[in-house]
Amino acid sequence: MRHTAIHNLASRLRKGDRSALSKAITLVESEHDDHQDKSETLFRHLAATGLRHSVRIGITGATGVGKSTFINTLGTILIGHGHRVAVLAVDPTSTLAGGSILGDKTRMSELTRHEACYIRPSPSGRNTDGVGDRTGEAALLCEQACYDFVIIETTGTGQTNVLVSEIADIFLLLVAPHGGDELQGIKRGVMELADFVLVTKNDGEHAATAGRTCAEYASALRLLRHRRGDPDQVPNAMTVSSLCADTVMSCWQSVEELIAWRRDHGTLLERRQRNSAKRLESEIRLQILNRIRNDAALATRLEDLAHEVARSGTSPMAAAREILDALSSCRDIQP
Amino acid sequence: MRHTAIHNLASRLRKGDRSALSKAITLVESEHDDHQDKSETLFRHLAATGLRHSVRIGITGATGVGKSTFINTLGTILIGHGHRVAVLAVDPTSTLAGGSILGDKTRMSELTRHEACYIRPSPSGRNTDGVGDRTGEAALLCEQACYDFVIIETTGTGQTNVLVSEIADIFLLLVAPHGGDELQGIKRGVMELADFVLVTKNDGEHAATAGRTCAEYASALRLLRHRRGDPDQVPNAMTVSSLCADTVMSCWQSVEELIAWRRDHGTLLERRQRNSAKRLESEIRLQILNRIRNDAALATRLEDLAHEVARSGTSPMAAAREILDALSSCRDIQP
Repeated sequence: MRHTAIHNLASRLRKGDRSALSKAITLVESEHDDHQDKSETLFRHLAATGLRHSVRIGITGATGVGKSTFINTLGTILIGHGHRVAVLAVDPTSTLAGGSILGDKTRMSELTRHEACYIRPSPSGRNTDGVGDRTGEAALLCEQACYDFVIIETTGTGQTNVLVSEIADIFLLLVAPHGGDELQGIKRGVMELADFVLVTKNDGEHAATAGRTCAEYASALRLLRHRRGDPDQVPNAMTVSSLCADTVMSCWQSVEELIAWRRDHGTLLERRQRNSAKRLESEIRLQILNRIRNDAALATRLEDLAHEVARSGTSPMAAAREILDALSSCRDIQP
Repeated sequence: MRHTAIHNLASRLRKGDRSALSKAITLVESEHDDHQDKSETLFRHLAATGLRHSVRIGITGATGVGKSTFINTLGTILIGHGHRVAVLAVDPTSTLAGGSILGDKTRMSELTRHEACYIRPSPSGRNTDGVGDRTGEAALLCEQACYDFVIIETTGTGQTNVLVSEIADIFLLLVAPHGGDELQGIKRGVMELADFVLVTKNDGEHAATAGRTCAEYASALRLLRHRRGDPDQVPNAMTVSSLCADTVMSCWQSVEELIAWRRDHGTLLERRQRNSAKRLESEIRLQILNRIRNDAALATRLEDLAHEVARSGTSPMAAAREILDALSSCRDIQP
């Protein structure tokens, strides 16, 4: 009975039914054990009928650089070319306070009017380290629902940049025109993940600054390039004005060229396999703790050990080993 | 034989022997299985003879705000009061490129001259999410080696801020005087972790800007305060000039007051227990993957499943469950 329901959901989703897609994503994002079983069944159904491939575009940039405007223009262009576009807004929450995800959908006003567009906030924030995040599964579901392009947007707090770069086939960093002193520090890690740096707001009063900023990023990227040998990984800096479809289009052409290059050289699939391995490891890290918490005896022991670590200086390494030995005791006594 | 060697290391360390401490930290940081066994033995020896408590001070701030200069002045003051001070420099590495840790030690010139001071870079960078990091253990070893204050310094890339705030009893955010537009975005998460925001370089030409910056952070912190109810968690903004010991001293008095308050209200121990639980979970997440990789059959299966996830859209959730079922198969068939 449940399985037929899931089966129906799967076939409606594969026909591109938006409400089925939303329902499926909600199911996958749920922490509820029963829902997790259901979503595994769903994925089995979908896997059975084969995998569809979209292009996954990761887009990161601080609040206010104009991600939504850029996505709005880019998405409209892609839809104009007859594509179906899904946008997953990964809104990070800070470590102690919660974040809001409502903004994005309203800001992408033009895009939301299109039937061929699906916009969905994907709350990753529960874990800033991305463990337990379901954005990868959400992207997979969008693909199965016949979306040719899945845009994954993040403001890049915590580990969400790494997370999104591991889901995306191509990763764009959007930066606003500025004095250039932001180039050091925090940005560096992001720039190494980015395939392209797009300097936004290349219009009106900002145009001059945008050009300078772009030049600064271009030279910074040249330095990075030397550090990493991979010819596929040569990032590029470009200016763009989301108010002018032509500039977005010309950026997009460069992006498409790199995607084509990666497809031809097999690095697109390589990249997805590398990332699947990482996703699988994150999932294992998540599930092991759920298993321990769901085992009354182990959960209690875990709590006691945490106290021992704090009070008597027991090593977390030894404590962790004890828990895992208990969990997999039978394997350990096997030769 | 090995155990006597470790026993000797432990007793030398408890006497405050610096070379023993260095050797112990190197042992703890090693990924080598044999070394991990040894460090567990070491921790057992140390735990047996009881736990010493230091005050752990986490200090974060972007490159160039003057962390080393501040620590140099603060450390010298504390040593002047007859304390022993250890400094662990957690140098973050970005996701793709490596970082360098050599800078810190040389910049704390005055401090390094003191016998009562121990400075050590603690490479956490291997995992930006902090999993597998050994800074917590290193801090514990410093305590056992009779250091009254353990200062843990980071530039706060990736998750290292969260990491350090989970090790420290008190967490200081250092910021340089600026226009104030940095207040949004990335800083926000850090400010919620910080107990104090110290605006550095409150001297010479910077003094005026430092005052303004401090006022901005103070009002931003007031907003945060409303979001989190905990009266213990009321962060404060102060200006400081590391060139003037008096200003560092007056900051330090406020810090000491909060530490005293937390000790009296038992929140210091609570905090350590909460953090030990997190450390233990991180350690479990790390070890589970090592166990899988060290089991030939499981390692191969993990690789195959990663390919399946990438090629045929198998759910990482189902794949992870299969691996964990295999690992703990005997438990699963028990009632």
